Amino acid sequence: LIVKERLVIFGENKIMGLNCVLLGAGNVASHLGPALKAAGYKILQVYSRTDSSARQLALKLEAVPLVRAGDVISDADFYFVALSDSAFAEVLPQIKIKNGLLVHCSGSQPLSVLSPFATRTGVLYPLQTFSKSREVDFFQVPLLIEADSEKNLKALEIVAGKLSETVHVADSGQRQALHVAAVFACNFVNHLYVLAEGILNEKQLPFSLIKPLIQETAGKALEIGPINAQTGPAVRYDLNILEKHLEYLSRNPELQELYKTFSKGIFELSKNKR
Amino acid sequence: LIVKERLVIFGENKIMGLNCVLLGAGNVASHLGPALKAAGYKILQVYSRTDSSARQLALKLEAVPLVRAGDVISDADFYFVALSDSAFAEVLPQIKIKNGLLVHCSGSQPLSVLSPFATRTGVLYPLQTFSKSREVDFFQVPLLIEADSEKNLKALEIVAGKLSETVHVADSGQRQALHVAAVFACNFVNHLYVLAEGILNEKQLPFSLIKPLIQETAGKALEIGPINAQTGPAVRYDLNILEKHLEYLSRNPELQELYKTFSKGIFELSKNKR
Repeated sequence: LIVKERLVIFGENKIMGLNCVLLGAGNVASHLGPALKAAGYKILQVYSRTDSSARQLALKLEAVPLVRAGDVISDADFYFVALSDSAFAEVLPQIKIKNGLLVHCSGSQPLSVLSPFATRTGVLYPLQTFSKSREVDFFQVPLLIEADSEKNLKALEIVAGKLSETVHVADSGQRQALHVAAVFACNFVNHLYVLAEGILNEKQLPFSLIKPLIQETAGKALEIGPINAQTGPAVRYDLNILEKHLEYLSRNPELQELYKTFSKGIFELSKNKR
Repeated sequence: LIVKERLVIFGENKIMGLNCVLLGAGNVASHLGPALKAAGYKILQVYSRTDSSARQLALKLEAVPLVRAGDVISDADFYFVALSDSAFAEVLPQIKIKNGLLVHCSGSQPLSVLSPFATRTGVLYPLQTFSKSREVDFFQVPLLIEADSEKNLKALEIVAGKLSETVHVADSGQRQALHVAAVFACNFVNHLYVLAEGILNEKQLPFSLIKPLIQETAGKALEIGPINAQTGPAVRYDLNILEKHLEYLSRNPELQELYKTFSKGIFELSKNKR
Protein backbone atom coordinates (compact mmCIF):
# COMPACT_ATOMS: atom_id res chain seq x y z
CA LEU A 1 0.00 0.00 0.00
CA ILE A 2 2.72 2.40 1.02
CA VAL A 3 4.76 1.61 -2.07
CA LYS A 4 1.76 2.09 -4.36
CA GLU A 5 0.80 5.42 -2.75
CA ARG A 6 4.34 6.61 -3.10
CA LEU A 7 4.49 5.77 -6.79
CA VAL A 8 1.17 7.43 -7.50
CA ILE A 9 2.17 10.65 -5.82
CA PHE A 10 5.53 10.52 -7.49
CA GLY A 11 4.04 9.94 -10.92
CA GLU A 12 1.72 12.91 -10.69
CA ASN A 13 4.40 15.44 -9.91
CA LYS A 14 7.33 14.15 -11.89
CA ILE A 15 6.99 16.61 -14.73
CA MET A 16 6.90 19.60 -12.43
CA GLY A 17 10.16 18.72 -10.77
CA LEU A 18 8.63 19.34 -7.37
CA ASN A 19 9.20 16.00 -5.68
CA CYS A 20 11.16 16.17 -2.47
CA VAL A 21 12.48 13.81 0.14
CA LEU A 22 13.08 15.19 3.61
CA LEU A 23 15.86 13.57 5.61
CA GLY A 24 15.36 14.47 9.23
CA ALA A 25 12.33 15.34 11.36
CA GLY A 26 13.90 17.61 13.95
CA ASN A 27 13.64 21.35 14.57
CA VAL A 28 14.81 22.45 11.10
CA ALA A 29 12.94 19.75 9.14
CA SER A 30 9.69 20.46 10.97
CA HIS A 31 9.79 24.06 9.72
CA LEU A 32 11.37 23.50 6.31
CA GLY A 33 8.90 20.71 5.42
CA PRO A 34 5.73 22.76 5.86
CA ALA A 35 7.38 25.72 4.09
CA LEU A 36 8.17 23.52 1.08
CA LYS A 37 4.66 22.11 1.08
CA ALA A 38 3.12 25.60 1.31
CA ALA A 39 5.29 26.65 -1.65
CA GLY A 40 3.78 23.86 -3.76
CA TYR A 41 6.45 21.19 -3.38
CA LYS A 42 5.47 17.61 -2.79
CA ILE A 43 7.19 15.86 0.10
CA LEU A 44 7.16 12.17 -0.80
CA GLN A 45 9.05 10.74 2.15
CA VAL A 46 10.19 11.85 5.57
CA TYR A 47 13.08 9.93 7.07
CA SER A 48 14.00 9.95 10.76
CA ARG A 49 15.68 7.28 12.84
CA THR A 50 13.02 8.06 15.45
CA ASP A 51 9.81 6.39 14.30
CA SER A 52 7.43 8.75 16.12
CA SER A 53 9.19 11.84 14.72
CA ALA A 54 9.08 10.47 11.16
CA ARG A 55 5.37 9.60 11.50
CA GLN A 56 4.38 12.90 13.10
CA LEU A 57 6.02 15.09 10.46
CA ALA A 58 5.05 12.79 7.56
CA LEU A 59 1.42 12.97 8.64
CA LYS A 60 1.54 16.76 8.56
CA LEU A 61 3.20 16.76 5.14
CA GLU A 62 1.06 13.95 3.65
CA ALA A 63 4.28 12.03 3.09
CA VAL A 64 5.44 8.49 3.76
CA PRO A 65 7.39 8.09 6.99
CA LEU A 66 10.63 6.10 6.89
CA VAL A 67 12.90 4.84 9.65
CA ARG A 68 15.30 3.08 7.28
CA ALA A 69 17.39 5.39 5.12
CA GLY A 70 17.74 2.51 2.64
CA ASP A 71 14.05 2.92 1.77
CA VAL A 72 14.52 6.41 0.35
CA ILE A 73 13.48 6.53 -3.32
CA SER A 74 16.22 7.22 -5.84
CA ASP A 75 14.45 9.50 -8.31
CA ALA A 76 13.10 12.48 -6.37
CA ASP A 77 13.97 15.95 -7.62
CA PHE A 78 15.29 17.28 -4.31
CA TYR A 79 16.71 15.64 -1.22
CA PHE A 80 16.84 17.96 1.77
CA VAL A 81 19.23 16.86 4.51
CA ALA A 82 18.04 18.43 7.77
CA LEU A 83 19.90 16.04 10.04
CA SER A 84 22.21 16.86 12.92
CA ASP A 85 25.74 17.06 11.52
CA SER A 86 26.76 13.98 13.48
CA ALA A 87 24.14 11.89 11.61
CA PHE A 88 25.44 12.76 8.12
CA ALA A 89 28.04 9.99 8.06
CA GLU A 90 25.55 7.35 9.14
CA VAL A 91 22.60 8.24 6.91
CA LEU A 92 24.01 9.55 3.62
CA PRO A 93 25.90 6.39 2.52
CA GLN A 94 22.61 4.46 2.62
CA ILE A 95 20.90 6.66 0.05
CA LYS A 96 21.06 6.16 -3.71
CA ILE A 97 20.30 9.22 -5.81
CA LYS A 98 19.86 9.09 -9.60
CA ASN A 99 19.67 12.67 -10.72
CA GLY A 100 18.11 14.64 -7.89
CA LEU A 101 19.72 17.63 -6.19
CA LEU A 102 21.10 16.69 -2.80
CA VAL A 103 20.85 19.73 -0.50
CA HIS A 104 21.94 20.01 3.11
CA CYS A 105 20.74 22.63 5.58
CA SER A 106 23.72 22.83 7.88
CA GLY A 107 25.62 26.00 8.74
CA SER A 108 28.89 24.26 9.47
CA GLN A 109 29.20 21.48 6.88
CA PRO A 110 30.96 22.42 3.65
CA LEU A 111 29.20 21.74 0.38
CA SER A 112 31.87 19.16 -0.46
CA VAL A 113 30.63 16.81 2.26
CA LEU A 114 27.82 15.83 -0.12
CA SER A 115 29.86 15.02 -3.23
CA PRO A 116 30.41 11.30 -2.49
CA PHE A 117 26.62 10.80 -2.43
CA ALA A 118 25.25 12.64 -5.47
CA THR A 119 26.37 14.24 -8.72
CA ARG A 120 24.33 17.40 -8.09
CA THR A 121 24.77 19.06 -4.70
CA GLY A 122 23.80 22.24 -2.89
CA VAL A 123 23.22 23.92 0.44
CA LEU A 124 20.17 25.77 1.72
CA TYR A 125 20.92 27.10 5.20
CA PRO A 126 18.03 28.76 7.05
CA LEU A 127 19.50 31.27 9.50
CA GLN A 128 17.03 31.05 12.35
CA THR A 129 16.41 29.28 15.67
CA PHE A 130 13.73 26.65 15.25
CA SER A 131 11.88 24.79 17.96
CA LYS A 132 9.19 22.27 17.05
CA SER A 133 6.68 23.87 19.39
CA ARG A 134 6.97 27.38 18.01
CA GLU A 135 5.67 28.77 14.72
CA VAL A 136 8.05 30.87 12.65
CA ASP A 137 7.20 32.91 9.58
CA PHE A 138 9.53 31.05 7.22
CA PHE A 139 9.16 33.74 4.59
CA GLN A 140 11.15 36.08 6.85
CA VAL A 141 13.98 33.59 7.45
CA PRO A 142 17.20 34.49 5.57
CA LEU A 143 18.27 31.57 3.38
CA LEU A 144 21.93 31.14 2.44
CA ILE A 145 22.43 29.03 -0.65
CA GLU A 146 25.40 27.45 -2.42
CA ALA A 147 25.67 24.81 -5.17
CA ASP A 148 28.27 22.87 -7.14
CA SER A 149 27.34 24.50 -10.47
CA GLU A 150 25.64 27.60 -11.84
CA LYS A 151 22.77 25.47 -13.05
CA ASN A 152 22.20 23.86 -9.70
CA LEU A 153 22.52 27.21 -7.96
CA LYS A 154 19.80 28.54 -10.26
CA ALA A 155 17.55 25.59 -9.39
CA LEU A 156 18.15 26.18 -5.70
CA GLU A 157 17.56 29.90 -6.09
CA ILE A 158 14.11 29.17 -7.47
CA VAL A 159 13.22 26.92 -4.54
CA ALA A 160 14.66 29.36 -1.98
CA GLY A 161 12.86 32.30 -3.58
CA LYS A 162 9.54 30.55 -3.08
CA LEU A 163 10.32 29.88 0.57
CA SER A 164 11.72 33.22 1.73
CA GLU A 165 11.97 36.88 0.85
CA THR A 166 15.67 36.94 1.80
CA VAL A 167 17.97 34.69 -0.25
CA HIS A 168 21.74 35.17 -0.37
CA VAL A 169 24.49 33.18 -2.02
CA ALA A 170 27.20 32.35 0.54
CA ASP A 171 30.17 30.03 0.21
CA SER A 172 31.06 27.45 2.82
CA GLY A 173 33.47 29.81 4.61
CA GLN A 174 30.90 32.58 4.90
CA ARG A 175 28.25 30.12 6.04
CA GLN A 176 30.61 28.90 8.75
CA ALA A 177 31.08 32.48 9.96
CA LEU A 178 27.30 32.97 9.94
CA HIS A 179 26.77 29.84 11.97
CA VAL A 180 29.38 30.80 14.57
CA ALA A 181 27.92 34.32 14.78
CA ALA A 182 24.44 32.82 15.14
CA VAL A 183 25.60 30.67 18.05
CA PHE A 184 26.84 33.83 19.81
CA ALA A 185 23.79 35.95 19.01
CA CYS A 186 21.20 33.24 19.67
CA ASN A 187 22.30 30.21 21.73
CA PHE A 188 24.66 32.15 24.00
CA VAL A 189 22.24 35.05 24.31
CA ASN A 190 19.51 32.63 25.29
CA HIS A 191 21.84 31.11 27.89
CA LEU A 192 22.31 34.59 29.39
CA TYR A 193 18.51 34.83 29.62
CA VAL A 194 18.54 31.50 31.47
CA LEU A 195 21.18 32.78 33.91
CA ALA A 196 19.26 36.04 34.43
CA GLU A 197 16.09 34.07 35.15
CA GLY A 198 18.01 32.06 37.77
CA ILE A 199 19.27 35.24 39.47
CA LEU A 200 15.71 36.62 39.60
CA ASN A 201 14.06 33.42 40.81
CA GLU A 202 16.50 33.21 43.70
CA LYS A 203 14.83 36.36 45.03
CA GLN A 204 11.29 35.29 44.09
CA LEU A 205 11.21 37.77 41.22
CA PRO A 206 9.45 36.80 37.96
CA PHE A 207 11.34 36.64 34.65
CA SER A 208 8.55 38.75 33.15
CA LEU A 209 9.97 41.84 34.91
CA ILE A 210 12.88 41.97 32.47
CA LYS A 211 10.71 41.36 29.41
CA PRO A 212 10.66 45.01 28.26
CA LEU A 213 14.43 45.16 28.84
CA ILE A 214 15.07 42.09 26.69
CA GLN A 215 12.89 43.45 23.89
CA GLU A 216 14.48 46.89 24.00
CA THR A 217 18.00 45.44 24.11
CA ALA A 218 17.35 43.53 20.89
CA GLY A 219 15.41 46.37 19.26
CA LYS A 220 18.01 49.01 20.08
CA ALA A 221 20.97 46.94 18.87
CA LEU A 222 19.18 46.24 15.60
CA GLU A 223 18.34 49.89 15.08
CA ILE A 224 21.47 51.78 16.13
CA GLY A 225 23.99 48.90 16.04
CA PRO A 226 25.21 47.00 19.12
CA ILE A 227 28.42 49.03 19.49
CA ASN A 228 26.39 52.23 19.92
CA ALA A 229 23.74 50.56 22.05
CA GLN A 230 25.90 49.51 25.01
CA THR A 231 24.99 50.87 28.46
CA GLY A 232 25.54 49.75 32.04
CA PRO A 233 28.27 49.74 34.67
CA ALA A 234 31.06 48.16 32.58
CA VAL A 235 30.92 50.69 29.75
CA ARG A 236 30.92 53.51 32.34
CA TYR A 237 33.59 51.64 34.31
CA ASP A 238 31.52 52.26 37.45
CA LEU A 239 33.78 50.42 39.90
CA ASN A 240 31.33 51.00 42.72
CA ILE A 241 28.71 48.86 40.96
CA LEU A 242 31.12 46.35 39.40
CA GLU A 243 32.46 45.49 42.85
CA LYS A 244 28.99 45.22 44.34
CA HIS A 245 27.91 42.84 41.60
CA LEU A 246 30.99 40.63 41.93
CA GLU A 247 30.37 40.50 45.67
CA TYR A 248 26.71 39.62 45.01
CA LEU A 249 27.79 36.74 42.74
CA SER A 250 30.45 35.45 45.15
CA ARG A 251 28.35 32.35 45.99
CA ASN A 252 28.43 31.41 42.30
CA PRO A 253 32.03 31.41 40.98
CA GLU A 254 30.95 30.54 37.42
CA LEU A 255 28.65 33.55 37.15
CA GLN A 256 31.29 35.69 38.80
CA GLU A 257 33.86 34.59 36.23
CA LEU A 258 31.46 35.31 33.38
CA TYR A 259 30.74 38.72 34.89
CA LYS A 260 34.46 39.55 34.95
CA THR A 261 35.04 38.35 31.37
CA PHE A 262 32.13 40.32 29.93
CA SER A 263 32.82 43.48 31.91
CA LYS A 264 36.44 43.44 30.77
CA GLY A 265 35.37 42.88 27.14
CA ILE A 266 32.78 45.65 27.24
CA PHE A 267 35.16 48.11 28.85
CA GLU A 268 38.02 47.35 26.43
CA LEU A 269 35.75 47.88 23.43
CA SER A 270 34.33 51.14 24.76
CA LYS A 271 37.86 52.37 25.47
CA ASN A 272 38.90 51.69 21.88
CA LYS A 273 35.78 53.49 20.68
CA ARG A 274 36.56 56.66 22.62
CA LEU B 1 17.59 86.63 36.14
CA ILE B 2 18.02 82.91 36.69
CA VAL B 3 17.23 83.24 40.38
CA LYS B 4 14.09 85.22 39.66
CA GLU B 5 12.85 82.77 37.03
CA ARG B 6 13.45 79.89 39.40
CA LEU B 7 11.48 81.51 42.17
CA VAL B 8 8.57 82.33 39.91
CA ILE B 9 8.28 78.76 38.63
CA PHE B 10 8.67 77.42 42.10
CA GLY B 11 6.00 79.71 43.53
CA GLU B 12 3.43 78.70 40.93
CA ASN B 13 3.63 75.00 41.63
CA LYS B 14 4.31 74.85 45.32
CA ILE B 15 0.72 74.03 46.33
CA MET B 16 0.49 71.10 43.95
CA GLY B 17 3.55 69.36 45.36
CA LEU B 18 4.84 68.79 41.87
CA ASN B 19 8.17 70.58 42.02
CA CYS B 20 11.14 68.42 41.15
CA VAL B 21 14.88 68.78 40.92
CA LEU B 22 16.73 66.42 38.63
CA LEU B 23 20.28 65.53 39.61
CA GLY B 24 22.01 64.10 36.57
CA ALA B 25 21.61 64.59 32.83
CA GLY B 26 22.78 61.21 31.54
CA ASN B 27 20.93 58.31 29.94
CA VAL B 28 18.46 57.75 32.80
CA ALA B 29 17.84 61.44 33.55
CA SER B 30 17.23 62.24 29.90
CA HIS B 31 14.35 59.74 29.84
CA LEU B 32 13.03 60.23 33.38
CA GLY B 33 12.94 64.01 33.03
CA PRO B 34 10.64 64.13 30.00
CA ALA B 35 8.45 61.40 31.54
CA LEU B 36 8.02 63.47 34.70
CA LYS B 37 7.26 66.56 32.67
CA ALA B 38 4.71 64.69 30.54
CA ALA B 39 3.06 63.45 33.73
CA GLY B 40 2.54 67.03 34.88
CA TYR B 41 5.53 67.48 37.16
CA LYS B 42 7.55 70.64 37.08
CA ILE B 43 11.31 70.23 36.75
CA LEU B 44 12.79 73.34 38.34
CA GLN B 45 16.48 72.55 38.02
CA VAL B 46 18.70 70.10 36.21
CA TYR B 47 22.13 69.54 37.69
CA SER B 48 25.05 67.98 35.82
CA ARG B 49 28.75 68.49 36.29
CA THR B 50 28.91 68.71 32.49
CA ASP B 51 27.65 72.14 31.52
CA SER B 52 26.46 71.15 28.01
CA SER B 53 24.52 68.15 29.33
CA ALA B 54 22.82 70.25 32.02
CA ARG B 55 21.90 72.94 29.50
CA GLN B 56 20.64 70.55 26.85
CA LEU B 57 18.31 68.63 29.16
CA ALA B 58 17.22 71.75 31.07
CA LEU B 59 16.21 73.39 27.80
CA LYS B 60 14.04 70.41 26.92
CA LEU B 61 12.44 70.41 30.36
CA GLU B 62 12.09 74.20 30.66
CA ALA B 63 14.26 74.03 33.77
CA VAL B 64 17.27 75.92 35.06
CA PRO B 65 20.58 74.22 34.33
CA LEU B 66 23.11 73.96 37.16
CA VAL B 67 26.73 72.85 37.19
CA ARG B 68 27.20 73.51 40.91
CA ALA B 69 25.32 71.11 43.17
CA GLY B 70 25.44 73.79 45.89
CA ASP B 71 22.96 75.85 43.81
CA VAL B 72 20.19 73.28 44.15
CA ILE B 73 17.15 74.79 45.89
CA SER B 74 16.25 73.38 49.28
CA ASP B 75 12.47 73.32 49.15
CA ALA B 76 11.48 71.25 46.10
CA ASP B 77 8.99 68.42 46.61
CA PHE B 78 11.08 65.73 44.92
CA TYR B 79 14.79 65.34 44.25
CA PHE B 80 15.56 62.64 41.71
CA VAL B 81 19.15 61.36 41.79
CA ALA B 82 19.94 59.93 38.35
CA LEU B 83 23.70 60.10 38.74
CA SER B 84 26.21 57.33 38.16
CA ASP B 85 26.72 55.55 41.49
CA SER B 86 30.29 56.82 41.69
CA ALA B 87 29.04 60.45 41.71
CA PHE B 88 26.71 60.00 44.72
CA ALA B 89 29.45 60.68 47.30
CA GLU B 90 30.60 63.84 45.56
CA VAL B 91 27.23 65.45 44.80
CA LEU B 92 24.85 64.55 47.62
CA PRO B 93 26.75 66.20 50.52
CA GLN B 94 26.47 69.53 48.70
CA ILE B 95 22.68 69.52 48.67
CA LYS B 96 20.48 70.84 51.45
CA ILE B 97 16.93 69.49 51.52
CA LYS B 98 14.24 70.90 53.83
CA ASN B 99 11.30 68.56 53.52
CA GLY B 100 11.42 67.13 49.99
CA LEU B 101 11.57 63.44 49.15
CA LEU B 102 15.08 62.44 48.05
CA VAL B 103 14.78 59.61 45.51
CA HIS B 104 17.59 57.77 43.77
CA CYS B 105 17.23 55.73 40.56
CA SER B 106 20.03 53.24 40.99
CA GLY B 107 19.65 49.47 40.90
CA SER B 108 22.61 48.75 43.10
CA GLN B 109 22.57 51.44 45.79
CA PRO B 110 20.62 50.59 48.93
CA LEU B 111 17.95 53.02 50.11
CA SER B 112 20.06 53.73 53.21
CA VAL B 113 22.72 55.52 51.15
CA LEU B 114 20.40 58.53 51.08
CA SER B 115 19.63 58.84 54.81
CA PRO B 116 22.54 61.21 55.66
CA PHE B 117 21.17 63.72 53.18
CA ALA B 118 17.40 63.92 53.78
CA THR B 119 14.77 62.95 56.32
CA ARG B 120 12.46 61.50 53.64
CA THR B 121 14.05 59.03 51.22
CA GLY B 122 13.01 56.64 48.48
CA VAL B 123 14.09 54.74 45.38
CA LEU B 124 12.54 54.70 41.92
CA TYR B 125 14.48 52.29 39.72
CA PRO B 126 13.51 52.14 36.05
CA LEU B 127 14.40 48.67 34.73
CA GLN B 128 15.37 49.49 31.18
CA THR B 129 18.39 50.29 28.99
CA PHE B 130 18.41 53.97 28.13
CA SER B 131 20.51 55.73 25.52
CA LYS B 132 20.13 59.45 24.97
CA SER B 133 19.68 59.02 21.24
CA ARG B 134 16.85 56.50 21.42
CA GLU B 135 13.22 57.07 22.36
CA VAL B 136 11.67 54.65 24.85
CA ASP B 137 8.01 54.41 25.79
CA PHE B 138 8.51 55.18 29.48
CA PHE B 139 4.98 54.02 30.28
CA GLN B 140 6.10 50.46 29.50
CA VAL B 141 9.20 50.60 31.70
CA PRO B 142 8.83 48.59 34.95
CA LEU B 143 9.50 50.85 37.94
CA LEU B 144 10.74 49.34 41.21
CA ILE B 145 10.06 51.55 44.20
CA GLU B 146 11.07 51.56 47.85
CA ALA B 147 10.85 54.19 50.60
CA ASP B 148 11.76 54.75 54.25
CA SER B 149 8.12 54.95 55.41
CA GLU B 150 4.64 53.89 54.34
CA LYS B 151 3.74 57.51 53.77
CA ASN B 152 6.72 58.18 51.53
CA LEU B 153 6.13 54.92 49.68
CA LYS B 154 2.57 56.06 49.01
CA ALA B 155 3.87 59.39 47.67
CA LEU B 156 6.32 57.57 45.42
CA GLU B 157 3.65 55.14 44.28
CA ILE B 158 1.57 58.06 43.04
CA VAL B 159 4.47 59.50 41.06
CA ALA B 160 5.47 56.10 39.66
CA GLY B 161 1.88 55.27 38.73
CA LYS B 162 1.74 58.40 36.58
CA LEU B 163 4.99 57.46 34.82
CA SER B 164 4.48 53.76 34.10
CA GLU B 165 1.87 51.03 33.90
CA THR B 166 4.16 48.61 35.79
CA VAL B 167 5.08 49.60 39.35
CA HIS B 168 6.41 47.11 41.88
CA VAL B 169 7.66 47.53 45.42
CA ALA B 170 11.10 45.92 45.78
CA ASP B 171 13.53 46.11 48.69
CA SER B 172 17.22 46.86 48.22
CA GLY B 173 18.15 43.16 48.04
CA GLN B 174 15.61 42.43 45.31
CA ARG B 175 16.62 45.52 43.41
CA GLN B 176 20.23 44.37 43.52
CA ALA B 177 19.22 40.99 42.04
CA LEU B 178 17.22 42.77 39.33
CA HIS B 179 20.18 44.94 38.45
CA VAL B 180 22.58 41.99 38.23
CA ALA B 181 20.05 40.04 36.13
CA ALA B 182 19.60 43.10 33.90
CA VAL B 183 23.35 43.31 33.31
CA PHE B 184 23.31 39.68 32.12
CA ALA B 185 20.17 40.00 29.99
CA CYS B 186 21.01 43.38 28.51
CA ASN B 187 24.64 44.55 28.69
CA PHE B 188 26.16 41.07 28.26
CA VAL B 189 23.62 40.12 25.60
CA ASN B 190 24.47 43.30 23.72
CA HIS B 191 28.16 42.44 23.99
CA LEU B 192 27.42 39.07 22.35
CA TYR B 193 25.72 41.00 19.53
CA VAL B 194 28.93 43.05 19.19
CA LEU B 195 31.04 39.90 19.02
CA ALA B 196 28.68 38.33 16.46
CA GLU B 197 28.89 41.48 14.34
CA GLY B 198 32.69 41.23 14.43
CA ILE B 199 32.60 37.59 13.30
CA LEU B 200 30.31 38.53 10.39
CA ASN B 201 32.22 41.62 9.32
CA GLU B 202 35.43 39.60 9.10
CA LYS B 203 33.78 37.75 6.20
CA GLN B 204 32.18 40.86 4.68
CA LEU B 205 28.74 39.78 5.89
CA PRO B 206 26.28 42.43 7.16
CA PHE B 207 24.96 42.36 10.73
CA SER B 208 21.45 42.71 9.26
CA LEU B 209 21.54 39.04 8.20
CA ILE B 210 21.09 37.94 11.81
CA LYS B 211 18.36 40.47 12.55
CA PRO B 212 15.47 37.98 12.31
CA LEU B 213 17.47 35.55 14.45
CA ILE B 214 18.03 38.14 17.18
CA GLN B 215 14.36 39.09 17.19
CA GLU B 216 13.16 35.50 17.27
CA THR B 217 15.65 34.56 20.01
CA ALA B 218 14.24 37.29 22.26
CA GLY B 219 10.64 36.62 21.26
CA LYS B 220 10.86 32.87 21.76
CA ALA B 221 12.53 33.11 25.19
CA LEU B 222 9.88 35.57 26.34
CA GLU B 223 7.05 33.35 25.14
CA ILE B 224 8.11 29.82 26.05
CA GLY B 225 10.82 30.64 28.63
CA PRO B 226 14.57 30.58 27.91
CA ILE B 227 15.10 27.07 29.31
CA ASN B 228 12.66 25.63 26.75
CA ALA B 229 13.89 27.89 23.95
CA GLN B 230 17.48 26.66 23.73
CA THR B 231 18.67 25.19 20.39
CA GLY B 232 22.02 24.77 18.65
CA PRO B 233 25.07 22.50 18.76
CA ALA B 234 25.77 22.69 22.52
CA VAL B 235 22.32 21.57 23.64
CA ARG B 236 22.48 18.69 21.14
CA TYR B 237 26.10 18.07 22.13
CA ASP B 238 26.97 17.94 18.43
CA LEU B 239 30.74 17.41 18.82
CA ASN B 240 31.23 17.62 15.09
CA ILE B 241 30.08 21.26 15.07
CA LEU B 242 31.52 22.21 18.45
CA GLU B 243 34.99 21.19 17.30
CA LYS B 244 34.60 22.98 13.97
CA HIS B 245 33.59 26.18 15.73
CA LEU B 246 36.47 26.03 18.22
CA GLU B 247 38.83 25.49 15.31
CA TYR B 248 37.24 28.44 13.49
CA LEU B 249 37.83 30.65 16.54
CA SER B 250 41.41 29.49 17.10
CA ARG B 251 42.83 32.83 15.94
CA ASN B 252 40.87 34.53 18.71
CA PRO B 253 41.57 32.83 22.07
CA GLU B 254 39.14 35.07 23.98
CA LEU B 255 36.20 34.15 21.76
CA GLN B 256 37.28 30.53 21.88
CA GLU B 257 37.30 30.60 25.69
CA LEU B 258 33.85 32.19 25.75
CA TYR B 259 32.61 29.55 23.32
CA LYS B 260 33.84 26.77 25.60
CA THR B 261 32.34 28.33 28.73
CA PHE B 262 28.91 28.85 27.18
CA SER B 263 28.77 25.47 25.46
CA LYS B 264 29.63 23.76 28.73
CA GLY B 265 27.00 25.76 30.60
CA ILE B 266 24.31 25.09 27.99
CA PHE B 267 25.07 21.39 27.86
CA GLU B 268 25.14 21.00 31.66
CA LEU B 269 21.75 22.70 32.00
CA SER B 270 20.16 20.62 29.24
CA LYS B 271 21.53 17.45 30.85
CA ASN B 272 19.92 18.38 34.16
CA LYS B 273 16.66 19.08 32.37
CA ARG B 274 16.52 15.65 30.74
